[in-house]
Amino acid sequence: MGELSSWNDSAAKRAILDFVAAVTDEGGSGYVPPSERIATFDNDGTLWCEHPMQPQLFFLVDRVKQLAAKDPSLKDRQPYKAVLERDLKTLREEGKQGLMELAFATHAGMSEEAFDKIAKAWFAASRHPKHGKPFNQCLYRPQVELLQFLRANGFKTFIVSGGGIDLIRAFAEEAYGIPREQVIGSSGRLRYELHDGKAVLMKAAELNSFDDREIKPANIGLHIGRRPILAFGNSDGDLAMMRYTRTGSGARLALLLHHDDEEREAAYDRDFHLSPLAEALDKADEYGITVVSMKHDWKVVFDDH
Amino acid sequence: MGELSSWNDSAAKRAILDFVAAVTDEGGSGYVPPSERIATFDNDGTLWCEHPMQPQLFFLVDRVKQLAAKDPSLKDRQPYKAVLERDLKTLREEGKQGLMELAFATHAGMSEEAFDKIAKAWFAASRHPKHGKPFNQCLYRPQVELLQFLRANGFKTFIVSGGGIDLIRAFAEEAYGIPREQVIGSSGRLRYELHDGKAVLMKAAELNSFDDREIKPANIGLHIGRRPILAFGNSDGDLAMMRYTRTGSGARLALLLHHDDEEREAAYDRDFHLSPLAEALDKADEYGITVVSMKHDWKVVFDDH
Repeated sequence: MGELSSWNDSAAKRAILDFVAAVTDEGGSGYVPPSERIATFDNDGTLWCEHPMQPQLFFLVDRVKQLAAKDPSLKDRQPYKAVLERDLKTLREEGKQGLMELAFATHAGMSEEAFDKIAKAWFAASRHPKHGKPFNQCLYRPQVELLQFLRANGFKTFIVSGGGIDLIRAFAEEAYGIPREQVIGSSGRLRYELHDGKAVLMKAAELNSFDDREIKPANIGLHIGRRPILAFGNSDGDLAMMRYTRTGSGARLALLLHHDDEEREAAYDRDFHLSPLAEALDKADEYGITVVSMKHDWKVVFDDH
Repeated sequence: MGELSSWNDSAAKRAILDFVAAVTDEGGSGYVPPSERIATFDNDGTLWCEHPMQPQLFFLVDRVKQLAAKDPSLKDRQPYKAVLERDLKTLREEGKQGLMELAFATHAGMSEEAFDKIAKAWFAASRHPKHGKPFNQCLYRPQVELLQFLRANGFKTFIVSGGGIDLIRAFAEEAYGIPREQVIGSSGRLRYELHDGKAVLMKAAELNSFDDREIKPANIGLHIGRRPILAFGNSDGDLAMMRYTRTGSGARLALLLHHDDEEREAAYDRDFHLSPLAEALDKADEYGITVVSMKHDWKVVFDDH
């Protein structure tokens, strides 16, 4: 596939090409040495689809079903009952505490390695209800091309996601060419334990970091220790990361994907309660953020390989 | 410099060479694909000298002097007074709380980028009292060779240190060829703030993670998300990391540097109260850890470049 061949020849594509040309031009005023060419991408809604809900939530529902098959008493216990009956009203009433209980029941209490196997088996077996293919194939082709293009120009590409770090790590290397150590996400605490002389990291039912909004740049500081020169997001949860990137000195590019393509994917922004886009869209001009229109800037949406 | 030319042709060197040959032999039973060739190194006492005390503590003392020059009232206030007067008895009485106050007063309350400048200026100006050269030149040459040798064989090399992450990042890339994003260390919380429209990460006076003992493998899980196949340490603070590495399946190598070289550096282990080595040395055989003797296994100690 050619250089960003899934992108229309629009202002957004030109902004990307001009930026990459500037930071790689060794004599130029915008030159950035390869070690500083850090690009950070949100995942849900930026690299893969998040509509009607994030794949992580489909995973959570499927995991609750698995757990209920082993322990039928869950069918009568909240918040599990509400998940199994798709009872959104009760789920909302259970609130943040109910959601955390669900998250830990489905993601914790096992070793990192055991979770990785569960996640990979789910990717192999599951299908997106609308697109009819495995979730790890619901990737945006223009973005996969962009990641490759950036790496071909000496960039190191990172994911900085509100999604769970271990679910992303189970597919990101194969899907995006982004290795596990370049994935930052929400995480629970890990506990070192010895089981019959073998050291394992157990996923504890305790939050370590919810990697959203102002926590995204803070985690970039912790994991990467460099200010990115390019950031790509699609919601207000990415705004702090985009501003942290954009307000550094020298050449910087912040990109915001707008889901305005009802026909090929979905059209949503400020009313998408799972991850709204409002301030970042309203203030994109003021903050120097380049808006990418799915409808107008992308020739194709999905990566049908 | 040749392949591990600063290492004597001893059992330790042969263990390293055999291990690297096995994991890179594509047809062999010990083969490990490059993406999984993760090597983690402790820093203090493993890559650079930590005797008579860690460079971080020299940095802390110099920072207290800088602060006292600006605010003379510190000269009469504990725990600053004790630092300035080298009053170890009072320092010990001030305990962990006093040490945390000192750590935050000297490392926090500024942006990441401001701290990086302070750290780099300190490396340029300071001298190790015994070795008479800048701290970032008190590196062990055999280890710098080993890092290069591993990378030449497709390994990704990481630092996993109890030392402060930002002080290490200020010199590791130039000294060891280890980029900032491959440094894991102790850290304070970072807060995203907007200063006159510019986003900055402020180093808060709040502990995020003390990267020692069982927390080392937990942070490897968080930052890297893969079990290392090689780990190198020098104290009981590294034992959990070494066991996490060693007890994975397939070819694994855990190495422990023993400071037994009074003449060329220093001889210390279980009585070095800043970072004792006892259990890891006593149980090295049982745990499958290869002990490296500074005195017998290294032709030269320091990297006199």
